[in-house]
Amino acid sequence: MKALLIVSDGMGDRPNKKLGGKTPLQAAKTPNLDYVAKIGCCGIMDTIAPGIPPGSDTAHLAIFGYDPHEYYTGRGAFEALGVGIHVNPGDVALRVNFATLQEEEKGLRIVDRRAGRKVPEGDKLAEKLNEYSLKTAKDVEFTLKHSVEHRGVLVLSGPGLSYKVSDTDSHEIQETVQESKPLDGSKEALKTAKIVNELSTAFHKILKNDPLNQERINRGEPPANGVLMRGAGILPKVIPLNEKYGISCSCVAAAALYRGVAAAVGMKLYKAPGDTATYETNEESIAKTALDILPENDLVFIHFKPTDNAAHDGNPELKVQMIEKLDNMVGKLIEGIDLENEHYIVLTADHTTPCTIRDHTGEPVPLEMAGPGVRTDQTTAFSEIDCQGGGLGRLRGKDLMPIIMDYLRKTRIFGS
Amino acid sequence: MKALLIVSDGMGDRPNKKLGGKTPLQAAKTPNLDYVAKIGCCGIMDTIAPGIPPGSDTAHLAIFGYDPHEYYTGRGAFEALGVGIHVNPGDVALRVNFATLQEEEKGLRIVDRRAGRKVPEGDKLAEKLNEYSLKTAKDVEFTLKHSVEHRGVLVLSGPGLSYKVSDTDSHEIQETVQESKPLDGSKEALKTAKIVNELSTAFHKILKNDPLNQERINRGEPPANGVLMRGAGILPKVIPLNEKYGISCSCVAAAALYRGVAAAVGMKLYKAPGDTATYETNEESIAKTALDILPENDLVFIHFKPTDNAAHDGNPELKVQMIEKLDNMVGKLIEGIDLENEHYIVLTADHTTPCTIRDHTGEPVPLEMAGPGVRTDQTTAFSEIDCQGGGLGRLRGKDLMPIIMDYLRKTRIFGS
Repeated sequence: MKALLIVSDGMGDRPNKKLGGKTPLQAAKTPNLDYVAKIGCCGIMDTIAPGIPPGSDTAHLAIFGYDPHEYYTGRGAFEALGVGIHVNPGDVALRVNFATLQEEEKGLRIVDRRAGRKVPEGDKLAEKLNEYSLKTAKDVEFTLKHSVEHRGVLVLSGPGLSYKVSDTDSHEIQETVQESKPLDGSKEALKTAKIVNELSTAFHKILKNDPLNQERINRGEPPANGVLMRGAGILPKVIPLNEKYGISCSCVAAAALYRGVAAAVGMKLYKAPGDTATYETNEESIAKTALDILPENDLVFIHFKPTDNAAHDGNPELKVQMIEKLDNMVGKLIEGIDLENEHYIVLTADHTTPCTIRDHTGEPVPLEMAGPGVRTDQTTAFSEIDCQGGGLGRLRGKDLMPIIMDYLRKTRIFGS
Repeated sequence: MKALLIVSDGMGDRPNKKLGGKTPLQAAKTPNLDYVAKIGCCGIMDTIAPGIPPGSDTAHLAIFGYDPHEYYTGRGAFEALGVGIHVNPGDVALRVNFATLQEEEKGLRIVDRRAGRKVPEGDKLAEKLNEYSLKTAKDVEFTLKHSVEHRGVLVLSGPGLSYKVSDTDSHEIQETVQESKPLDGSKEALKTAKIVNELSTAFHKILKNDPLNQERINRGEPPANGVLMRGAGILPKVIPLNEKYGISCSCVAAAALYRGVAAAVGMKLYKAPGDTATYETNEESIAKTALDILPENDLVFIHFKPTDNAAHDGNPELKVQMIEKLDNMVGKLIEGIDLENEHYIVLTADHTTPCTIRDHTGEPVPLEMAGPGVRTDQTTAFSEIDCQGGGLGRLRGKDLMPIIMDYLRKTRIFGS
């Protein structure tokens, strides 16, 4: 018995006037999603709890079976794992952006949070930054790694660090770079905030004089003369899925965060060729990669990103298209598995992102599952509205993984 | 975005033979409640937990988003706030009744728990009682305030008090006045119980010789010669709604308890002219007051009492009439708001009070909500039975406020 767990990011939505009062899922043509609903069982799920808008990180932790109220320790370490940086327990990781800063009397003003988005010099600039030695904490080392575009990750390694520090990134252009502050009274948070502030200042001094930035300016490009830091996090202390249930499990995802959460809970990481996590993503390639690795796995998690992108862009028609892309992916998956005898398919979203709101909200997400022995219900179409009447009722995110593991016969009787 | 939260007290019921097997909600003509069900989403809700009959105080705490298992600290402080007495953190408040007592060998026998219900001398009697000085605890002061009929509140202020003390009120006529006992092993509870017992004895001595009581006897009325005390409570340590969500919120209610819970969680208090909290209450006036204050509020809570009264009186036909009164109120509210673009309406009960039982029981209550973006479901009528198949599924009371706040965009993403 094996299971495919598909999470379509931000797929949940609200009735939308531009779609004649339907949700994007209702408006989309989804013969394959509907087929799973018809042969299987549906429900709605509060990834965190009713009314609580989930972050992408907390939502995935919950879907993987870890109550985020207990296990969530910030986003940074997931991002680091997701871009392939090794993170040790106790290391503090932060998401960073190369940015364009302007020196002013009141501080460093943020001119462009992304330094024009294109920073091909990122690897070389990171190399130079990594030569710097910390003055405020001689026992701490750091590594800055550039990933894609303007993005990267900074990892601090050493004793007595904490992820309870605020961002230097003001998240708004024209604002000044912020001083990182300890978010609790611990000496670890104070130490970490000092390190972050030292690096924030030092990185700007190093970058502003770098010849690569002079070349960018000469070409008319905004210089990558600063590093904004945000989302400090450490690895959550979880028993990973492979140990907890004695399974092998893998992830097919392109975006760093989801790969990182998957890695943190014990999944092997795969990326499908052509999976861009954008509107142009090659959904059939994602299906192929998942089917290719299925024989060596008990559980394959597939992350489908573009539904959320369309919602954040406030474009319900585009979200409909992305849902139809998802449906095509699911069709290819169904062709390659045996839902009658061998395989389970479980499909849901991590959170609701209404196109009208363009941000995460707290409504439950739709959920469907099918496979050998899964009870049926009267649901014959897959949408937020149809799933409300489904046989699974209203679940919490953290309850999903035990249900899947139970179908795979990987749970143990509690009691006797 | 603004929300109206309407709680119809004890509205939930059971199928009733006198109504041809229908519940009062099913039997009543409720075009407005049904309209909300039709355009919105329905469900059922365990205010506390399945099978647990909620008190009015714990139910409202839960509906306001505070888990009563964590936050409930007795009824008395709510009653005090509800009749306009200021209560400081740590003050212990008790509900009191003027009663008619008879001195007997075994103690003070309760002849009438309410001293004939009509005690117009209450304010003057309270004034005299407040002149007494405590002997057992010189550091504690008290205030007795008469409210309506035979009712009042006693507040104890001073260091080292506890609400964990039993009632002097035996709750049965012909029984004797009870000795208040500490309900845990703390010295605070022991100290408070001693104070309560001293006041119980002292108040009787003062009242029995009061000329106002002699006048009552001369008129053939039962003397108000004792004060029964019950329901000791302190203010719960909550972050009030206005701080928690950054909203302004108000309450339209007549009965002290509901006003008190609302005040304790940060609501401003309003009372509609003609809102008597009885069968004669002016429901259109309640709607008018709520609509009048809506512009200055994010959330207006409306308490509708008479549905519970009819249930406690065991009168299903009267409960049907009271539900139709509620429906008329909701009709007036709907006329004054814009459910398509601006306003949310959420309607539920605090608990089930079956007319056959005449007391609170543990069945879930029906729940409906409508407003911009609220997902629809197939429910087209509002009742305990219809709501069972609704799109909201089965919720807990404490989950309702986050859902409302999420629609008002007052929640924060958990995680990132």
